[in-house]
Amino acid sequence: MIGGGQGAFIGAVHRIVAAMDGQIELVAGAFSSDPNKSQQTGAALFLDPERVYGSYEAMIAQEKGLSADKKIDIVCIVTPNHLHFEPAAMALRNGFHVVLEKPATFTLEEARKLHDLVAETRLQLLLCHTYTGYPMVKEARHLVQSGALGKIRKVYVEYPQGWLSTDLEDSGHKQASWRTDPSRSGKAGAMGDIGTHAFNLAEYVSGLEVTHICADIQTVVEGRQLDDDGAALLRFNNGATGVLMATQVAAGEENNVKIRVYGELGGLEWQQEDANSLVLKWPDKPKTVLRTGGPGLSPVAMHNTRTPAGHPEGYLEAFANLYRNFACTLQALAAGTVPPDACLDFPGTREGVRGMAFIDSVIHSGQSDQKWIEFKA
Amino acid sequence: MIGGGQGAFIGAVHRIVAAMDGQIELVAGAFSSDPNKSQQTGAALFLDPERVYGSYEAMIAQEKGLSADKKIDIVCIVTPNHLHFEPAAMALRNGFHVVLEKPATFTLEEARKLHDLVAETRLQLLLCHTYTGYPMVKEARHLVQSGALGKIRKVYVEYPQGWLSTDLEDSGHKQASWRTDPSRSGKAGAMGDIGTHAFNLAEYVSGLEVTHICADIQTVVEGRQLDDDGAALLRFNNGATGVLMATQVAAGEENNVKIRVYGELGGLEWQQEDANSLVLKWPDKPKTVLRTGGPGLSPVAMHNTRTPAGHPEGYLEAFANLYRNFACTLQALAAGTVPPDACLDFPGTREGVRGMAFIDSVIHSGQSDQKWIEFKA
Amino acid sequence: MIGGGQGAFIGAVHRIVAAMDGQIELVAGAFSSDPNKSQQTGAALFLDPERVYGSYEAMIAQEKGLSADKKIDIVCIVTPNHLHFEPAAMALRNGFHVVLEKPATFTLEEARKLHDLVAETRLQLLLCHTYTGYPMVKEARHLVQSGALGKIRKVYVEYPQGWLSTDLEDSGHKQASWRTDPSRSGKAGAMGDIGTHAFNLAEYVSGLEVTHICADIQTVVEGRQLDDDGAALLRFNNGATGVLMATQVAAGEENNVKIRVYGELGGLEWQQEDANSLVLKWPDKPKTVLRTGGPGLSPVAMHNTRTPAGHPEGYLEAFANLYRNFACTLQALAAGTVPPDACLDFPGTREGVRGMAFIDSVIHSGQSDQKWIEFKA
Amino acid sequence: MIGGGQGAFIGAVHRIVAAMDGQIELVAGAFSSDPNKSQQTGAALFLDPERVYGSYEAMIAQEKGLSADKKIDIVCIVTPNHLHFEPAAMALRNGFHVVLEKPATFTLEEARKLHDLVAETRLQLLLCHTYTGYPMVKEARHLVQSGALGKIRKVYVEYPQGWLSTDLEDSGHKQASWRTDPSRSGKAGAMGDIGTHAFNLAEYVSGLEVTHICADIQTVVEGRQLDDDGAALLRFNNGATGVLMATQVAAGEENNVKIRVYGELGGLEWQQEDANSLVLKWPDKPKTVLRTGGPGLSPVAMHNTRTPAGHPEGYLEAFANLYRNFACTLQALAAGTVPPDACLDFPGTREGVRGMAFIDSVIHSGQSDQKWIEFKA
Repeated sequence: MIGGGQGAFIGAVHRIVAAMDGQIELVAGAFSSDPNKSQQTGAALFLDPERVYGSYEAMIAQEKGLSADKKIDIVCIVTPNHLHFEPAAMALRNGFHVVLEKPATFTLEEARKLHDLVAETRLQLLLCHTYTGYPMVKEARHLVQSGALGKIRKVYVEYPQGWLSTDLEDSGHKQASWRTDPSRSGKAGAMGDIGTHAFNLAEYVSGLEVTHICADIQTVVEGRQLDDDGAALLRFNNGATGVLMATQVAAGEENNVKIRVYGELGGLEWQQEDANSLVLKWPDKPKTVLRTGGPGLSPVAMHNTRTPAGHPEGYLEAFANLYRNFACTLQALAAGTVPPDACLDFPGTREGVRGMAFIDSVIHSGQSDQKWIEFKA
Repeated sequence: MIGGGQGAFIGAVHRIVAAMDGQIELVAGAFSSDPNKSQQTGAALFLDPERVYGSYEAMIAQEKGLSADKKIDIVCIVTPNHLHFEPAAMALRNGFHVVLEKPATFTLEEARKLHDLVAETRLQLLLCHTYTGYPMVKEARHLVQSGALGKIRKVYVEYPQGWLSTDLEDSGHKQASWRTDPSRSGKAGAMGDIGTHAFNLAEYVSGLEVTHICADIQTVVEGRQLDDDGAALLRFNNGATGVLMATQVAAGEENNVKIRVYGELGGLEWQQEDANSLVLKWPDKPKTVLRTGGPGLSPVAMHNTRTPAGHPEGYLEAFANLYRNFACTLQALAAGTVPPDACLDFPGTREGVRGMAFIDSVIHSGQSDQKWIEFKA
Repeated sequence: MIGGGQGAFIGAVHRIVAAMDGQIELVAGAFSSDPNKSQQTGAALFLDPERVYGSYEAMIAQEKGLSADKKIDIVCIVTPNHLHFEPAAMALRNGFHVVLEKPATFTLEEARKLHDLVAETRLQLLLCHTYTGYPMVKEARHLVQSGALGKIRKVYVEYPQGWLSTDLEDSGHKQASWRTDPSRSGKAGAMGDIGTHAFNLAEYVSGLEVTHICADIQTVVEGRQLDDDGAALLRFNNGATGVLMATQVAAGEENNVKIRVYGELGGLEWQQEDANSLVLKWPDKPKTVLRTGGPGLSPVAMHNTRTPAGHPEGYLEAFANLYRNFACTLQALAAGTVPPDACLDFPGTREGVRGMAFIDSVIHSGQSDQKWIEFKA
Repeated sequence: MIGGGQGAFIGAVHRIVAAMDGQIELVAGAFSSDPNKSQQTGAALFLDPERVYGSYEAMIAQEKGLSADKKIDIVCIVTPNHLHFEPAAMALRNGFHVVLEKPATFTLEEARKLHDLVAETRLQLLLCHTYTGYPMVKEARHLVQSGALGKIRKVYVEYPQGWLSTDLEDSGHKQASWRTDPSRSGKAGAMGDIGTHAFNLAEYVSGLEVTHICADIQTVVEGRQLDDDGAALLRFNNGATGVLMATQVAAGEENNVKIRVYGELGGLEWQQEDANSLVLKWPDKPKTVLRTGGPGLSPVAMHNTRTPAGHPEGYLEAFANLYRNFACTLQALAAGTVPPDACLDFPGTREGVRGMAFIDSVIHSGQSDQKWIEFKA
């Protein structure tokens, strides 16, 4: 693991979800650029001090030289955005698979390079768009693909948060600090942090690709350097239209991701606050509600479920599904077999490139007087 | 009543809600341009056949000549949009108050004229934006006005319906037929029918005025003559931004009006499907849920409530609140007293003009390559 | 109308719901035993002072002598329980149909007499168990009758209120005062006021009859004279079992009536707080949600609905359905035709007798050491 | 781990939740009485074959002899009920802490012995009443303890499942088979499997103790040997009353645990289907909704939460909280320090004895004509 020292949010999440299914073991880490802090974190995690490093370069260099049964297989990168590309590229070049936090990189250009590098090295990269790990999101995608809703006409996706309603970054809040700093976060704030999730969710569930964007992007909190709010009209490659809303200044909102997709024959609705339900609405028959683990689900939803119906699975399980599918893919490849489709269903550099292109397009649109900006990945 | 013959939807609703509180009695009507049909409707409503007319002109002419204790006080117009202005204007010119279905008129120009005519005649006009009649919507407006949410930053309003997902108008469906016909509906379809409701709700609750619009307007169902779907980015006069979504092709949706408003201090959420709850979200304290008739409400919400908490009030009661406040205003005026503020809280020609301006702006924006269209009422 | 003077709750409700559908007109009343107060109420309702009476005896005597086209058809009784039987019996004996608040009478014996009197006079009596007026409750009953759930095994019915959590009756609260007074309410408090509703709902939806009761009945608030809380185990005539919970000391609850019925094949759930949804749960297929006015409903549900799907109907509409079906029955009988089944679907003295028997049984059980009390109507 | 071979449900759950927080590592197991099957499970879990055993006796005997840094600290028992006491007792007698599935034992007598043995050995035992691990359940208990609801008057607890609506046990379903078999499950079916959870939840949240029970217990599915349905009236040691409903034949229900507690000042409601919300209802102020990770929570709720508000935590996280608190307690004891109160908050043999006493009382009551059965633990 690179990054994820004490006080970090997402690093701890990665450790929980990687451990959950007993397929991946954390054995080494460069948790901080301060060797002492890195060792402290390692000790708290019961790691061998010899495999706790003060830099990712040191980690990759030393681990590379260990015997196959001992060295790490995967490098997990949970640093701020400006520290994604270099460690990821180095890991790939040295033969390690990569788990990478989103957005993929600091710039679109880097994302494209990473995409090429993955193709070149024939290694695997997992990009952590957690929301696509929920069984009911996978069911939603499956239903669209199966044609159950008919031709898709409309996609509404939204991600309201409220935690940046005040200038939290000025009070030394670690998460707020780097996310609102262009030198660490990149050209986008909210659009990069959560807009990319919303965008990814919309494309994943609908199976469509955005072709044009018309956005209104705001920096609502005075003095903030990056956007903290935005909305965009979307057009998709099949002629469907949509709306994307992402904000971090919806005071009082937690993390309320929601998607609705309507086709000629019916609509679906999924919301993280009721993550184990998938609501289907029909013009000619009663509303139906699919439930995690319940009757009427596709194999792909069941594959991503651990417990029987009625035992709510949450964010950590959704996240762990990414890891589990990734691990399953690596095991298959290691065994020389073809990974099952259900395991290959995890986001990678293709999604990374599109996410970075979303950031470019949406920020560009926000600054432009031109109504429609073409989406170029 | 003008219009509202057998088979009409909204005419029957008006009769129910006008009767509900025992303040208004239906005594005359020109229900259809076919005198026989008009008489049939009148008979079903136990009306005196002598006061059932074959045209609104005949009704206004004859009723005008009746004695004060007998003649009608109010003319209620529930015809399609192209038949709003003339009967409304004639009624006002002949001394009758007017209840008018939305959108106010066929064109913005007509709405402005009507507005002037109301001012001139010093009569009252009620424009039926039903959703502002809900007690919890009134509470929402009150909370914003009181400053409870701080300065408003964000408004999301949406109105998804699904009933026009197919070309219903081609199968002789009466409601669908005129609503999708430019010669009866005007220049907008969905934007006029439900977009105006969403727009009105956004301005009513937020207390703000829209200044700029950037819209994507669609005709999704092939062969349809007017828009059946649209979304718009909004900018308000205090610097807040917003999103308006209105569609009649969200297959499976009923009539799912919803509004969310976020200020510096917190947010509120109201949805017609759970009309008796108003959800308040706060960054620094637990979510609170106000309930129709429950503790912690303002006098204006209580004024618009008939039953104790836990006895759900619905669409008809919300609609009846418009009538009840209108009747209370007329009674006060008739008695020579100043109507209470709580009674004066009903939509009129100001809202009519702004609604027609919304139609103009949003349709113009939908056809334009210019990003932002200035909203001019 | 007998009773329902100023300050009364349910009298005003009756006036609203009777007026709603334009089938019934309030023309006379004995609103109070104080003639002045009665006249005041009559004046506020725009009634002819000559038809406003100081006693129900006077009203019945005088109205009886009026011509058929003028005199009242229906006597509506909204007085406390101890004043139900006498006016109802007198009305029936003098040729008037009766609308009666629940519980039917002061004693079981009176209810039986009233039942016989209705049979004898061949007049109609409507007993106001409002909750059976909801379209989704009727749909629930229909589904059970249709066999969709298979043989019924389990019924849970509950009615938690919180308004009597304190000794409200000691502070002069009019509603609380008579409801907790044995000389006006009868032998039961909460069990009579809301327990009878829960009991009626359970039998109506399940189509079953209770045969045995085992109850724990409490007077929670110190000094109160009647029960304010209770729960009962139930056994039904087909072998099913159930639980009934009714309380007026669940602090914070509004009026949260809910019923769940499970059969061999599936279960249903209806709750007044979400009155326009009926949830169906199945072991072998996804949950379905029927909605007022929506697709997949039976004719009986549609018959009791006024507006299209998505326009919430509430307590007043449910109540008005009782009146509307009652009026439709009277009109058919007056026309010499057989009332449609859909109109005959309103509670009467059969339900009145069973409700009074419930009060007897449940109070007896609460006082008894015997586990099971046989239910005798 | 003892039990939990392939095909078992709860064994896999234990492995997930023990791993989740990186405090406990699975290193040995007697997964099946068939040594081959045990080895297969061990291999799938990457265990050292030398530490995979064909019997728990062998495991305890061998592990006991290992060095302190190598041998297991905790024995986790996930076998059917008849195989709880012996391995638990042997583990304790040989110096191992114990994690035990509920209900604690096969008989009340065994539970009492186990309780004494824990006291005697001064080791720790965790009894897996998972539902008390939810942060919002802990918050509920905290609120009651803090007096926020005033004196408690009423407790409703329910646990409807539908999975045993048919004779699943006759089709070879492993879970159904032992749970409906008196020789493996004990004297109760549904009451032991889920009634004990409901009972434990009621006592945990209310802080009260049941003193009397009056139950109606059924075997609904023909041919089944144990109860599959039941309801009980409850009386508590402070004078409060309650209702407990637990059924496995509510066709269509998943695992819908719910508790409501009402005091003099307000009520609370928690339901597993919306596990991250705790609803508080008040007579004199608006409903409030506490949310996992959100504002206004007590330290005990925060201690049992892993992610920020809006990242739903589910069943596995609740379960893992038991393990985490247990591990934290063991670490403190191992370090010679006093475990923090927040860590000591896990169920043990006290709850085990009361749970077994509940089974005895409720089954006895179901078979008795006596109305109230005294609860004796």
